[in-house]
Amino acid sequence: MKIAVLGTGNVGRTIAGRLAGLGHDVAIGTRNPQETLARTDGDAMGNPPFSVWHGEHADVALLPYADAAQRAELMFNACSGDGSLPALRLAGAANLAGKVLVDVANPLDFSRGFPPTLLVKDSDSLAEQIQAAFPDAKVVKTLNTVNAAVMVDPEALAGGEHSIFLSGDDAASKGTVGDLLRSFGWRDVIDLGDLSTARGAEMLLPLWLRLMNALGTPAFNFKVVR
Amino acid sequence: MKIAVLGTGNVGRTIAGRLAGLGHDVAIGTRNPQETLARTDGDAMGNPPFSVWHGEHADVALLPYADAAQRAELMFNACSGDGSLPALRLAGAANLAGKVLVDVANPLDFSRGFPPTLLVKDSDSLAEQIQAAFPDAKVVKTLNTVNAAVMVDPEALAGGEHSIFLSGDDAASKGTVGDLLRSFGWRDVIDLGDLSTARGAEMLLPLWLRLMNALGTPAFNFKVVR
Repeated sequence: MKIAVLGTGNVGRTIAGRLAGLGHDVAIGTRNPQETLARTDGDAMGNPPFSVWHGEHADVALLPYADAAQRAELMFNACSGDGSLPALRLAGAANLAGKVLVDVANPLDFSRGFPPTLLVKDSDSLAEQIQAAFPDAKVVKTLNTVNAAVMVDPEALAGGEHSIFLSGDDAASKGTVGDLLRSFGWRDVIDLGDLSTARGAEMLLPLWLRLMNALGTPAFNFKVVR
Repeated sequence: MKIAVLGTGNVGRTIAGRLAGLGHDVAIGTRNPQETLARTDGDAMGNPPFSVWHGEHADVALLPYADAAQRAELMFNACSGDGSLPALRLAGAANLAGKVLVDVANPLDFSRGFPPTLLVKDSDSLAEQIQAAFPDAKVVKTLNTVNAAVMVDPEALAGGEHSIFLSGDDAASKGTVGDLLRSFGWRDVIDLGDLSTARGAEMLLPLWLRLMNALGTPAFNFKVVR
């Protein structure tokens, strides 16, 4: 499948690399490819500059948001919470129309330090804000409840015995995304319901952040035992 | 141990019955015992009136909040979210002072239907509001992330292979509560940290409610896989 991944951070890179490894035709979208490639600093998490990663992933194109979105059949939003809507506006409503948009972002507000609070919650969600801004896109929320490494290789954690959530208004789009998730190794994919259920998935983050602190690792997930 | 359980609903009854079964000296606290016993209607979940339950649990006393709290060494707050602070005020600050107060309540707002929203979240929690109102109590948040049946008998669900969280500012109190939880059958008790981490545990409820809907049962829990 032709897939665009919007966002050049660790989450975007990890998803793009995994999709390319599975044989998809993948482009990462960014505001300005030249500027992205020119950066020489790593990020706060110790990840190298994009150019280093890109040198090891020549099979992944780097394009302006709109070009990446235009050619794609399906897109991932892997931007930061507050960067998501601006990036999608640059991608362009016409390039999103009729396409599955997988939103993996969390609306985290780090302005008051750790742990971050949520920019939107409970009576709204980032996923719903994106859907409202781009009514012709088919938004599916998923993967926001695990870190990047677990997103794309769940079997590396406890043999894959844990759960991932899906929220979205379009059943066929959730089916497509569910198939992609299973190709990553996910076995327990739980459809929470319509896109408003993304409020629940996004509000897991406050607990996730405290668990990361308590456990001393981001390599964990929840198994829904029933 | 002499234990008070504040609240006569399904959660309070279930905890009180389990504690009495384990040999503790248990009193349930209510605003007005005569009025509580005189009620003849069941609740919205199909639970019978309190008097029916009490007829089967003669070993559990029913006392006014203050009397139940005064005689207790440790207390559970099993009131509704918006009923918690009023009930604790009736229990009386002097009767809470120096004692472990296990807060299992969720600050749910049902005024706009299902799913409820949270009355307080993200930058505060019900547990912290209780601690602020009663600074001499030793508040420990736990058990709010599962339904009443799972709270007191985790082994009845998937052999007990799932997790429960603890938040509190006093390590000794968390130790006492951890021992009580283990006596219920909990094996994976995760100390999230100080009482502010209760924000994370309370904000799990929006996901919990949507999962209950998707799974068609409240008999589930999260196992933290790591």
